[in-house]
Amino acid sequence: MSKTDRGRFFEDFGVGQVLRHATPRSVTEADQALYIALTGSRFALHSSSVFARALGLPRAPLDDMLVFHLVFGRTVADVSLNAVANLGYADCVFGVPVYPGDDLTAESRVLALRETANGKTGVVWLRSTGTNQRGETVLEYVRWVMVNKRDPAAPAPEPVIPDLPAAVDVARLRVPEGLSLAGYDTELAGSPHLYDDYEIGERIDHLDGMTLEEAEHQMATRLYQNNARVHFNLHAARDSRFGKRIVYGGHVISIARALSFNGLANAFRVAAINGGRHARPTFAGHTIYAWSEVLEKIDLPDRTDVGALRLRTVATKDKPCAEFPFTGPDGKPDPAVVLDLDYTVLMPRR
Amino acid sequence: MSKTDRGRFFEDFGVGQVLRHATPRSVTEADQALYIALTGSRFALHSSSVFARALGLPRAPLDDMLVFHLVFGRTVADVSLNAVANLGYADCVFGVPVYPGDDLTAESRVLALRETANGKTGVVWLRSTGTNQRGETVLEYVRWVMVNKRDPAAPAPEPVIPDLPAAVDVARLRVPEGLSLAGYDTELAGSPHLYDDYEIGERIDHLDGMTLEEAEHQMATRLYQNNARVHFNLHAARDSRFGKRIVYGGHVISIARALSFNGLANAFRVAAINGGRHARPTFAGHTIYAWSEVLEKIDLPDRTDVGALRLRTVATKDKPCAEFPFTGPDGKPDPAVVLDLDYTVLMPRR
Amino acid sequence: MSKTDRGRFFEDFGVGQVLRHATPRSVTEADQALYIALTGSRFALHSSSVFARALGLPRAPLDDMLVFHLVFGRTVADVSLNAVANLGYADCVFGVPVYPGDDLTAESRVLALRETANGKTGVVWLRSTGTNQRGETVLEYVRWVMVNKRDPAAPAPEPVIPDLPAAVDVARLRVPEGLSLAGYDTELAGSPHLYDDYEIGERIDHLDGMTLEEAEHQMATRLYQNNARVHFNLHAARDSRFGKRIVYGGHVISIARALSFNGLANAFRVAAINGGRHARPTFAGHTIYAWSEVLEKIDLPDRTDVGALRLRTVATKDKPCAEFPFTGPDGKPDPAVVLDLDYTVLMPRR
Repeated sequence: MSKTDRGRFFEDFGVGQVLRHATPRSVTEADQALYIALTGSRFALHSSSVFARALGLPRAPLDDMLVFHLVFGRTVADVSLNAVANLGYADCVFGVPVYPGDDLTAESRVLALRETANGKTGVVWLRSTGTNQRGETVLEYVRWVMVNKRDPAAPAPEPVIPDLPAAVDVARLRVPEGLSLAGYDTELAGSPHLYDDYEIGERIDHLDGMTLEEAEHQMATRLYQNNARVHFNLHAARDSRFGKRIVYGGHVISIARALSFNGLANAFRVAAINGGRHARPTFAGHTIYAWSEVLEKIDLPDRTDVGALRLRTVATKDKPCAEFPFTGPDGKPDPAVVLDLDYTVLMPRR
Repeated sequence: MSKTDRGRFFEDFGVGQVLRHATPRSVTEADQALYIALTGSRFALHSSSVFARALGLPRAPLDDMLVFHLVFGRTVADVSLNAVANLGYADCVFGVPVYPGDDLTAESRVLALRETANGKTGVVWLRSTGTNQRGETVLEYVRWVMVNKRDPAAPAPEPVIPDLPAAVDVARLRVPEGLSLAGYDTELAGSPHLYDDYEIGERIDHLDGMTLEEAEHQMATRLYQNNARVHFNLHAARDSRFGKRIVYGGHVISIARALSFNGLANAFRVAAINGGRHARPTFAGHTIYAWSEVLEKIDLPDRTDVGALRLRTVATKDKPCAEFPFTGPDGKPDPAVVLDLDYTVLMPRR
Repeated sequence: MSKTDRGRFFEDFGVGQVLRHATPRSVTEADQALYIALTGSRFALHSSSVFARALGLPRAPLDDMLVFHLVFGRTVADVSLNAVANLGYADCVFGVPVYPGDDLTAESRVLALRETANGKTGVVWLRSTGTNQRGETVLEYVRWVMVNKRDPAAPAPEPVIPDLPAAVDVARLRVPEGLSLAGYDTELAGSPHLYDDYEIGERIDHLDGMTLEEAEHQMATRLYQNNARVHFNLHAARDSRFGKRIVYGGHVISIARALSFNGLANAFRVAAINGGRHARPTFAGHTIYAWSEVLEKIDLPDRTDVGALRLRTVATKDKPCAEFPFTGPDGKPDPAVVLDLDYTVLMPRR
């Protein structure tokens, strides 16, 4: 029996199957410091324990997207080593905050399966859950990927299609326990603009650009122990369609979130990801820009001090966002767009 | 009202104005480890808590220049996003040591203003102060920058010029409280040469060279949460005067300080920066070399175990320093020189 | 007297001499996080304190090869600044595990000396020892290097040749104190294959490839405070035989060990390095692949729950290892091979 793992093929998945992922991970201050060094994140809550304690939290929690990547990273070896495409995310909810000293594990349950028309691949939907050492959920999300079949002649399974919400239910958005915004300092947070100041339909150009380097995206992706081959192997990539390493899409999400500080500095917490699409691959040397649109303003039950903004953040490569690029004049997708992320953040109210 | 911050212009500064900077920062062991990885620092005091405790300190403090960068980084968004040039530093004093677990904030007070002759820009002098969670000063310095005016037609303010010392006053040099050099181990520190062995006018070639990479200077500068655009955006830089990203001058200072270990291994503490000049920009691919000259030997009041050396450290790009390059044979500045730093270090006495 | 250190020459070594190396080093969680980010290590024991405690250890110990590099890094300034070649390692034994919070020092004793035939260089054998703050040995190894003579006319010393074992004696292999494998979870560890499942002569292709970047190997090598010049100075390297910076051979070892997770995920501990050879230099841009062969299965005295596998891991550059490249069809060494490492790991038994 081969000792090495070549990853699961479509035939290896079955509805209801639960995959316990390898490599539990102790989370440390160093993960947060590396995340800051690799992305430029400047959100005060994740940078300062004094700031966090002023809000009733025990210390600075990790950046939410860092938690996403750590959980996601654990799933790759079991879920997507043979993925042809990452098709989407949905119903992604952030649970209890993650602090240095926590220990994370992840598992995934197969929700649905459908062979694709050509019979060579299939789509698998999984719900993945990240859990801390006390068994509390820190994150859950549904993801679907197109996976190669080992044997194109293998019979197609009964197709099962999941029922996924267009956006995370408001009732599932979680405000960290004990959080109180009475001590929120907008000067330290970096912006005077609070929930009340944003309008539905408002669009914000985040102005700055960040150029990606091979060493940076490799280090970020390895920090998450995400071992998807396309990010690391130039020798194999030379014979691939693109001829080079592809940047982990999650790294682009993190860069866009970090850039969004300029315009959304008080979006102190990502509460949910409603959906996301990596419009096209990104490579080292590209400069990422981003803009955001306020899609929805959401009152939270029993909270008058904090509200939720549903946002779309669009990231581009090598194209500033003063004109909010999304579709070209011909109505076709703008080829500079690399990410279209629909997510929900928490922000203090006046 | 725009949600994004384009930085202050000259008209936005007024003498006496106090700017409280955003993003308080918890400092961790990871900042020190990343600093070592990014600069190659080998000073024993910052590398080992056992060494630090032998000198009466509670544990290893952060590298002094790391503290400088963390404080400086906080000021950038408010002070120098629209800076045309960083003109200088003066009167920079290091206060209480910074330890993992400390939480730093920074603020700046506008000391002086002067419009430049062409009416398009102005010079702003600020005194910036970094403070820990107990309100103790960890660093203060004066910096002056040339900033664009928003409107060239705006009237010039009354010029105010500050009175700055050529060097930090000896009375302000601070030996960390509780420091005792009885347990100082020169073998572990890496050199037998103590304060008594250096002579005024002595010049030291630090021998080694360190090549800069884009990923490294970007990571360092982001670790400090310094968001000056010129360091990160290749897309925009292509149309700039240099056509590429400029390395944060502070990263060059740190590389030069790390190289100076070979010749100054017992300079265990930077106590002050008297002045500094980035002679020209540095880019990825350049190899930094450095040499130092002893400018002054300073007795410290009430201390017979430790003295201060005032040093000039000069860094070059792509030019070894065996001949101490500074001016060319024609008396003009040597074009290889990128940094001329005048600072004061503490060193054990025999 | 020159303040700078140009490194020891052959004449500066004498049999029996003990070198106490500079820069003691506090080890932190950040070293482990950076190691993961720089190498992609996914071994559960080093990633998770919950996993470690289930095995009776107080928390997650550092990756063994990270400990090797930290100790080795300390020796470079005294041993190999003027090394012409790193000739080999032998009798390398890992002692007590290293945990965040430990403080490491290193010293080396000169075992043997022999001038080489041409009279310009000599070979020096040293036994280096890494010690924690309680004086416990964390690592010891013998290394021999060819070093330049300062003066080719200097007389040759009496040659002394050490007696080195072909492999570390089984009695010296150390199972961490308190380790119990009753709570070992193979799913979390990432593989069902235990000691019993491996056969002598079995060969394993680790499948994945990892491309090296300049910023990565420089950061790794600086993290270890290894100051060998050939890794950092492009300006000087341009005039060298290779025209570029050479990747620290230890970084290649770490990449190979990280790749070996796919096939050897339960090799939770490196207990010894019996010998190693860097077959040729590696440069940034190369993609490292690896394969392993089981050389020996070793019963450990008084342990029925854990056994030792003696492995050869071979790393190549830009050549996948499905065919286990080592020698070419002509019997000559395969020019893609960069590393041939003979080492011993611990693995749970059924």
